[in-house]
Amino acid sequence: MGANMARRLNDRGWHLAAVFDASPAAARALASELGCPAASTLAEVTSRAEIVITVVSDDAAMREIFGLAGGGPGLLENADGRLFINCATVSPDIHDKVAHAAKAAGALSIEACMASSITQARGGTLFLMVGGPAESVAVAAPVLSDLSSMVVHVGDTGDAAKAKALVNMVMNANTAALAEGLGLGVALGLDPGMLRQIFSKTGANSRVLETDGEDMQNRDHACYFSAAHAAKDSRIALELAARAGLRLPVAEAAWGQFQRMVDCGLGELDKSGVAELTFPGRHPQPD
Amino acid sequence: MGANMARRLNDRGWHLAAVFDASPAAARALASELGCPAASTLAEVTSRAEIVITVVSDDAAMREIFGLAGGGPGLLENADGRLFINCATVSPDIHDKVAHAAKAAGALSIEACMASSITQARGGTLFLMVGGPAESVAVAAPVLSDLSSMVVHVGDTGDAAKAKALVNMVMNANTAALAEGLGLGVALGLDPGMLRQIFSKTGANSRVLETDGEDMQNRDHACYFSAAHAAKDSRIALELAARAGLRLPVAEAAWGQFQRMVDCGLGELDKSGVAELTFPGRHPQPD
Repeated sequence: MGANMARRLNDRGWHLAAVFDASPAAARALASELGCPAASTLAEVTSRAEIVITVVSDDAAMREIFGLAGGGPGLLENADGRLFINCATVSPDIHDKVAHAAKAAGALSIEACMASSITQARGGTLFLMVGGPAESVAVAAPVLSDLSSMVVHVGDTGDAAKAKALVNMVMNANTAALAEGLGLGVALGLDPGMLRQIFSKTGANSRVLETDGEDMQNRDHACYFSAAHAAKDSRIALELAARAGLRLPVAEAAWGQFQRMVDCGLGELDKSGVAELTFPGRHPQPD
Repeated sequence: MGANMARRLNDRGWHLAAVFDASPAAARALASELGCPAASTLAEVTSRAEIVITVVSDDAAMREIFGLAGGGPGLLENADGRLFINCATVSPDIHDKVAHAAKAAGALSIEACMASSITQARGGTLFLMVGGPAESVAVAAPVLSDLSSMVVHVGDTGDAAKAKALVNMVMNANTAALAEGLGLGVALGLDPGMLRQIFSKTGANSRVLETDGEDMQNRDHACYFSAAHAAKDSRIALELAARAGLRLPVAEAAWGQFQRMVDCGLGELDKSGVAELTFPGRHPQPD
């Protein structure tokens, strides 16, 4: 995602001050492609750039780059006057902690959660949910605009991350339910292509039917959004629910399916791979 | 549903030979509205009509009207040459049994499962999934055409009922998942209207978001498709899955929610009423 966002911003004429990746080789390759420096430390990123966009894989990585896990200040070294735009889907709490730490370092920080995939990142057509103070969001607006086809300012710090967790929780449940419907259809001798067409005309229709239905049928699970990420995001939402005293049985069951994929070594398949658990004969059924 | 289908066929110039309902008063009221006879027995329906359309509430009612439960032949008395078009969502097995009994009585029988609601029945814009032999479907075609905007011949007897059960199973799961997403959003202090808009732009989008999202927010559960029917239909699908050796955890969880509504006395709410279980403060949470 990060690389495609950098490519897009480069296309739009932004000056790329530096790129960074946990893998220095990946950073160097991208830097060479885009003709910009590869920073060798997080502090170097902050020293070179006025606006820093972060896209990490999970809460732990987010804590690490902002120095919340010990081991130095990371991106917050000499961060006075910088703007951080944090795009990963991580727990809302983390955004709060990062925002506080950034403020203490004299920097601005917002979350800009992406409800789209790598293709949209490359084309600058992301759907962005933004959380943070209005003044900070205003500073970020020009760069957000070049990355997206639509920006919604959801609310204060953490609110966009909550909305994003809910989007993915519902999407994951719809995906797992679709895989069950198509899998059972095949088990009953129905043609899955016809069944997809029927679903599309009825109350069973959904965005994931459009994006994942055919892939489920054809076992094409090239990864746009991994089962491991689906499990992580549903879990973030379920932890919020537990704290709010809500039980969400359907989201729990969907999380269980994606977590089962991870446990079975299928976590790096696309989320459409959940069909591997529900189509007859593809994978051993649970006890 | 049946009354609205009769109104539509009347509009289209069909001769209504008779209407029948388990409640004689309901049949008389409709007969008086449409200027046709109210049959006082099932056998009278068959004696008056060449084509008989049935819409019952469940498997037991279907067995009863076709005399499969003992107590006389019902609609199959002197049924030679009649065509039965069975529109209820009942177990695929029942359609098989009815088709056999009809054949023995010299009649044709097909299933025409409706993936739409009373509004579409009235307007003749039902989406119909048809199961049965091609010759019987051809005989039914003119009447099906006047009831629907689209007819899909799914396959042989029982196949359309299977497809319909799958449609409703997926729809019900998407509905229950949506109620969880919106309910958790409200618990987290997010605006449900904004959240619906966000869902509509993302992978969380679905047909039920369009049809049920606002009703969930506004607690408008006037019944188009009851929670009790949702529970029944998901259960039909889950029984098919169990027989096929498939476990479908998300569909099971969704069934559990609609069954819980029934158990709590909320079964006659629209399926959108599942939000009563997931929005904070609306209904006691399960243990």
